[in-house]
Amino acid sequence: MAEQYDFSVLKLGAAKIPSPIKMSKIYGDSLANYVREDECILYDIDVKPGGTPPSLAKNHLLEKAGPREHIYFNPGHVHAGVVTCGGLCPGLNDVIRAIVVTLSLRYGVTRISGIRYGYRGFLPEYNLPTIALNSDLVDDIQTKGGTILGSSRGGGNTEAIVDAIERMNLNILFTIGGDGTQAGALAISKELTKRGLKVSIVGVPKTIDNDLSFIQRSFGFETAVALAVQAVYCAHTEANDAVNGIGLVKVMGRESGFIAAHTTIASSCVNFCLIPEIKFNLEGGNGLYTHLENRLKEKDHAVILLAEGAGQDILTANNEKDPSGNRKLSDIGHYLETRIPRYFRKRNFEVTLKYIDPSYMIRSAPADPNDSIYCARLGTHAVHAAMAGRTQMLISLINNTFVHLPMELAVSKRNYVDPEGPLWRDVLESTRQPLSLSNE
Amino acid sequence: MAEQYDFSVLKLGAAKIPSPIKMSKIYGDSLANYVREDECILYDIDVKPGGTPPSLAKNHLLEKAGPREHIYFNPGHVHAGVVTCGGLCPGLNDVIRAIVVTLSLRYGVTRISGIRYGYRGFLPEYNLPTIALNSDLVDDIQTKGGTILGSSRGGGNTEAIVDAIERMNLNILFTIGGDGTQAGALAISKELTKRGLKVSIVGVPKTIDNDLSFIQRSFGFETAVALAVQAVYCAHTEANDAVNGIGLVKVMGRESGFIAAHTTIASSCVNFCLIPEIKFNLEGGNGLYTHLENRLKEKDHAVILLAEGAGQDILTANNEKDPSGNRKLSDIGHYLETRIPRYFRKRNFEVTLKYIDPSYMIRSAPADPNDSIYCARLGTHAVHAAMAGRTQMLISLINNTFVHLPMELAVSKRNYVDPEGPLWRDVLESTRQPLSLSNE
Amino acid sequence: MAEQYDFSVLKLGAAKIPSPIKMSKIYGDSLANYVREDECILYDIDVKPGGTPPSLAKNHLLEKAGPREHIYFNPGHVHAGVVTCGGLCPGLNDVIRAIVVTLSLRYGVTRISGIRYGYRGFLPEYNLPTIALNSDLVDDIQTKGGTILGSSRGGGNTEAIVDAIERMNLNILFTIGGDGTQAGALAISKELTKRGLKVSIVGVPKTIDNDLSFIQRSFGFETAVALAVQAVYCAHTEANDAVNGIGLVKVMGRESGFIAAHTTIASSCVNFCLIPEIKFNLEGGNGLYTHLENRLKEKDHAVILLAEGAGQDILTANNEKDPSGNRKLSDIGHYLETRIPRYFRKRNFEVTLKYIDPSYMIRSAPADPNDSIYCARLGTHAVHAAMAGRTQMLISLINNTFVHLPMELAVSKRNYVDPEGPLWRDVLESTRQPLSLSNE
Amino acid sequence: MAEQYDFSVLKLGAAKIPSPIKMSKIYGDSLANYVREDECILYDIDVKPGGTPPSLAKNHLLEKAGPREHIYFNPGHVHAGVVTCGGLCPGLNDVIRAIVVTLSLRYGVTRISGIRYGYRGFLPEYNLPTIALNSDLVDDIQTKGGTILGSSRGGGNTEAIVDAIERMNLNILFTIGGDGTQAGALAISKELTKRGLKVSIVGVPKTIDNDLSFIQRSFGFETAVALAVQAVYCAHTEANDAVNGIGLVKVMGRESGFIAAHTTIASSCVNFCLIPEIKFNLEGGNGLYTHLENRLKEKDHAVILLAEGAGQDILTANNEKDPSGNRKLSDIGHYLETRIPRYFRKRNFEVTLKYIDPSYMIRSAPADPNDSIYCARLGTHAVHAAMAGRTQMLISLINNTFVHLPMELAVSKRNYVDPEGPLWRDVLESTRQPLSLSNE
Repeated sequence: MAEQYDFSVLKLGAAKIPSPIKMSKIYGDSLANYVREDECILYDIDVKPGGTPPSLAKNHLLEKAGPREHIYFNPGHVHAGVVTCGGLCPGLNDVIRAIVVTLSLRYGVTRISGIRYGYRGFLPEYNLPTIALNSDLVDDIQTKGGTILGSSRGGGNTEAIVDAIERMNLNILFTIGGDGTQAGALAISKELTKRGLKVSIVGVPKTIDNDLSFIQRSFGFETAVALAVQAVYCAHTEANDAVNGIGLVKVMGRESGFIAAHTTIASSCVNFCLIPEIKFNLEGGNGLYTHLENRLKEKDHAVILLAEGAGQDILTANNEKDPSGNRKLSDIGHYLETRIPRYFRKRNFEVTLKYIDPSYMIRSAPADPNDSIYCARLGTHAVHAAMAGRTQMLISLINNTFVHLPMELAVSKRNYVDPEGPLWRDVLESTRQPLSLSNE
Repeated sequence: MAEQYDFSVLKLGAAKIPSPIKMSKIYGDSLANYVREDECILYDIDVKPGGTPPSLAKNHLLEKAGPREHIYFNPGHVHAGVVTCGGLCPGLNDVIRAIVVTLSLRYGVTRISGIRYGYRGFLPEYNLPTIALNSDLVDDIQTKGGTILGSSRGGGNTEAIVDAIERMNLNILFTIGGDGTQAGALAISKELTKRGLKVSIVGVPKTIDNDLSFIQRSFGFETAVALAVQAVYCAHTEANDAVNGIGLVKVMGRESGFIAAHTTIASSCVNFCLIPEIKFNLEGGNGLYTHLENRLKEKDHAVILLAEGAGQDILTANNEKDPSGNRKLSDIGHYLETRIPRYFRKRNFEVTLKYIDPSYMIRSAPADPNDSIYCARLGTHAVHAAMAGRTQMLISLINNTFVHLPMELAVSKRNYVDPEGPLWRDVLESTRQPLSLSNE
Repeated sequence: MAEQYDFSVLKLGAAKIPSPIKMSKIYGDSLANYVREDECILYDIDVKPGGTPPSLAKNHLLEKAGPREHIYFNPGHVHAGVVTCGGLCPGLNDVIRAIVVTLSLRYGVTRISGIRYGYRGFLPEYNLPTIALNSDLVDDIQTKGGTILGSSRGGGNTEAIVDAIERMNLNILFTIGGDGTQAGALAISKELTKRGLKVSIVGVPKTIDNDLSFIQRSFGFETAVALAVQAVYCAHTEANDAVNGIGLVKVMGRESGFIAAHTTIASSCVNFCLIPEIKFNLEGGNGLYTHLENRLKEKDHAVILLAEGAGQDILTANNEKDPSGNRKLSDIGHYLETRIPRYFRKRNFEVTLKYIDPSYMIRSAPADPNDSIYCARLGTHAVHAAMAGRTQMLISLINNTFVHLPMELAVSKRNYVDPEGPLWRDVLESTRQPLSLSNE
Repeated sequence: MAEQYDFSVLKLGAAKIPSPIKMSKIYGDSLANYVREDECILYDIDVKPGGTPPSLAKNHLLEKAGPREHIYFNPGHVHAGVVTCGGLCPGLNDVIRAIVVTLSLRYGVTRISGIRYGYRGFLPEYNLPTIALNSDLVDDIQTKGGTILGSSRGGGNTEAIVDAIERMNLNILFTIGGDGTQAGALAISKELTKRGLKVSIVGVPKTIDNDLSFIQRSFGFETAVALAVQAVYCAHTEANDAVNGIGLVKVMGRESGFIAAHTTIASSCVNFCLIPEIKFNLEGGNGLYTHLENRLKEKDHAVILLAEGAGQDILTANNEKDPSGNRKLSDIGHYLETRIPRYFRKRNFEVTLKYIDPSYMIRSAPADPNDSIYCARLGTHAVHAAMAGRTQMLISLINNTFVHLPMELAVSKRNYVDPEGPLWRDVLESTRQPLSLSNE
């Protein structure tokens, strides 16, 4: 399966400068060591049925992240930039903090600029001054949600951004963002290379939906699940206390149902989990309505958890068009909020439905401690990678190990909940919903 | 490194009964599948410096956990027992709940007995009646800390326990506990085998210290870290607001400093993290006191985080004996609570020390959502393993995959924070404490 | 002002049975005492400008709540009912628990019936069996949101309810609910009196909006504010981190803006607080839009907090009709969610608006500890009142003292935020919004 | 009872300057008004048994707090100081924030100095520079525990402090602190008067123990109770899950058991609440040990909640001396932690005791939203009072109304839990412990 991937990471040049971080070079003296250049791990660890082992080929190996004995940039010459893009996600400030603290207190870098409101902050037409970052300024920011730099969606003209990077004399840029942001970062890096500029572009992958490939889990995801669980508990209480109560909760997940799946297992009170990866019918003998009615007859209440991208085919099938015509998601939550009661009214079956959409209360929350650990380590490793001259790469956690991952790979495909994989199987164990809610 | 391990798991016999859980047997139909008998993963994924790849040998492979197409026990004949042992740990009720719900609602097992207060519940002299468990009774228990079964430390006579298992006609026993509990379970299983009894003994590893080997992380650990972070924040506030304030926090970790290490990274405000694995001096030019004084002179406050097993050699060096003579830990927290102010008093340096020990407020907490997910999956997988006839094994998470792990291996050695590994390195990045606090 | 009120409370008859609760009858022996029949407090405590003192007239005095030396009902003969009505509110289970525990463990009452789903549970057509309540069953329920009895809106036929009370031989009924519920309870009590039945009807006032008169604060209110504050913080983060970000939050408050007002002061980050009591314009020189634009130009972000009943006149002014024609509130939240961006689009002023409606996540939450105390004391005092033969009354907290309040008074008028009172003044101090957002 | 009190408040002089805060002077126009000079409330509201009404005498009236139409100080001339003293308490930063924001954004005061580390910050020998406070600096501080100014215990020389106030040209000083702090503030104010200096000294009462008289509740108290409840829940879980488990929790309360009393009612799982106001025996037929043993025999577990000042007479009775000889409290928590198990060991009765002391985790917490409201209003009202020329007074909440209270009264006596009052009675309802645990 992984045959086609090449996990080797780009370097700007030879790292010849001794690191100002002092570590032991001896193994076995019980003192912390640098990461050696050739430390790596396997990506693929599955032994297939029949016994076919995973490949050990070089291009399937992932370089371990961490501080190197020699670095590429002279800390005294470095001007680093940090930019946060896209929707809010718990942990952004943790990552910013770790980057700034490691740059300044570990490497002695003094020029660190925060770019305002995403890539837009590079564009002259917006005239957004940068923020001079230092360890005092970021000391406490991880206790707040959001990003002290502001954020915005959208990319902006690659050439204009690179012009700005040239003007600012940045030699390192940290891009904290998702799929689109990292695709933009890749384009920026390629343009920089074309211009012969030695600028390290290092990404920290951010996607509250957890839909980035080659990344075990995205930061903020656990916090999002924890908060979504609260919403589900509320829906459960409302459902349980009303006459034939139905609790309906919509969570994030445009194309991937990871938040919904994990929230289901965590809360243990979801009866129907609906995600974009798995089609379902509303009507018909095996459709949602039939199974929901059976559940209500048996237990008097039910909880339905929706990923926002679930059932998009149903909405169009029902000829409800999106006003702007583009691929913007139709709102499955509001749709079911009105359609489910309508279905039961027709059947003279009294139900009470309560709908909860906690999305913005989740995105803007501060990271919980476990995400804070993850963000701190992502940010720190991003700095080590950049200082060592790596570029066009992200910090990723794979097989529970922090590694360097080429941007090219990260943006090559999305991550989906595999309907035949262990996560979805465990969702089914939790909900005991039918294997399929499709009439086919 | 892993050469000496054999990860193959014991089976009571051939699994010939079709599972009552209905899943797809077709791959690619987007419907959830059973786990096949030969699905497994690599344990060792490290490519060593120089390029030596990890072994692909059969005995280094770990069997994946999950429901099998055929099971060993007839659900109608099963009498299952569940026992929780040792100190409290967030998530115990989640695990109990998942075991009971999966047994009853997925497999149709109706006889499930909860053993009271650990292994003691088997012993006739205590005359502790079992609790009849069912899905209604456990419906909500995961929202509470502790264990509905009660717990106690200590093992009890293996023969007497096996006598009780025989009397009760248990054919499955789930042992939720740590090192000692699983060693006890192994002894029980061996005695059962000796007596020719086909009883499945399946463990769920519990250790709030995270010190079990071959297990990526133990349940309740993340919750423990999250709560320890709160204590550290409090200590930081107290330290910050007082004249030369010192916040001293002691967390769990008898022989392994995992909670202290993760709490340090999560909180970003610890200045000295002290763990059992790494020796340190108090006095002397490179000792804690000197570095603490320097920190106070520079920043007016400091936070010290202790694992309870840290610095035990210091306590004996000071000839403070343990009253009962056994290996019971001396209290490093109380020791430093008095000794640090004494040191500074001698130097006419005013300090204000506040000491916090949050241990029992952590152990008794309910699991946070991410631990709840983990516990739910551990419990569910334990049932699948037992029903499929596995025995003398634990459910473990390795390389982010749920697997079956022989008890023999799990109890063969402890897990330690490697002073030369990435976790400790990241602790040093966070605290910027010296590489060593030892004068040697 | 209070001239017209009569605070004296109805009694079913003389209380002659010695209470099974043992207390001291001596004052000054440092042992807890019964409440004497003539202990009361002033309702009105305001000295008016000019020096007019409050009235000390008998009918302005409120009887203190608490256990009496003699009770009216023989505990062995009592069959008590408990019913919860209307929308969910944090603390319902706390009140139920306190009533049941006090009845059973303090007075020895053994027959306690929980009525299901509000007054509907009395009606034969729904055929809803009661729940037999006892102290074990309610032991832990206060840690959950909602009500273990279920609830529903609406009253039901008074005569049918009284028929049911007769059939059940209830001699005490606790009605936990708001304005409508207590009006219903009053009608029930009057019908019982008409039939010559000695049944004590004691209410516990419940209104998450805090809009009941003669009651200092309603239970669940503080919890609601605490959770609303979280929503406002999230809105603030979203607003702060976006380009001209606007955070819009709608909270409960159909006719009274207490939640919005308290949430504003608690969060310290609301710029415009809009409540039903105070009219405002959107357009025009002193309207919301103008002041919002000024705020954005000055500070780049703004937070607006709405009570759900705010601006209802604006919605009709814009000819947006309510589909069912009745007084159902139009949704001011959704209205402003679309209208504010439309206004700024017309002016070519880029804004980013995020809308949060946390209502159902608030209603279903468990009570926070301070509300738990309040609920426990309300429930306990309700039992003391009923056992002592009081009827047609509520337990109320006035001037920080628990008292008996006639239902007649409680339902006679609503409680409003006084635009000229200290609470609203302190809201203005917090937001620094204009004294008026009206063009008049 | 209240005969001897005089609630009239000192004024520096006539308030002649029109307030820069614009409010309506018309009553009935639905616009917020100033507080008039003669608005006041009754302090005493109790009608005594027999019908004796409370006094309406002038000196029993309390002046309402709030903004006045005319102020004493010209905002442009004001230099205000803020000082926080004593132990940490949730809400300190909320109060500081409200004072600074109201001074600067409502009155236009630009010179506000934060005094470091309590009164010590005035003393030249410590050479502690003040912090220049403004609304930006305090914008977010209320989300943190502690005080941004630092704090310390102890008063310092009144004359030296007044010298410093003179040197700094302060004309307003806000003293945030408890009994000792306000007694100090009173001395400072008197010395200022002696020197003919017109300096307003306005206190904000702070006592986590809630032991200040004439104050309905102190800020941070509710937060403290909420966190103490968590500790009690943990103790309950530990007790419940162990063999004859005893959970022992010690909370703050040196001379008054308010935190213990409220925590008991809030948690509903305390069996024995022990406070300084009520003596108890350990041994003997009616002592704690006997009742504890009975409880364990009946229910297998028990929870004991201690205020730190409880049972001090027992400790001395047992001849355990305080090392330093002064009145420093002996540690009743540690004492019972060892003595209770010893008692049961002697009786061959196996118990498992877990001891929790959450004090420093409570003191350093941020205020919960209800306390934040209270603090915001206290701080705002303190500024209004000072600007209007009030002095030697505190802001107090009495009968649910914010009022001006003379310092003289506030420090004249402590507030105690009345063993014959409604709070303690409700504690007994909750625990169902004996009316007395004393053998007398």
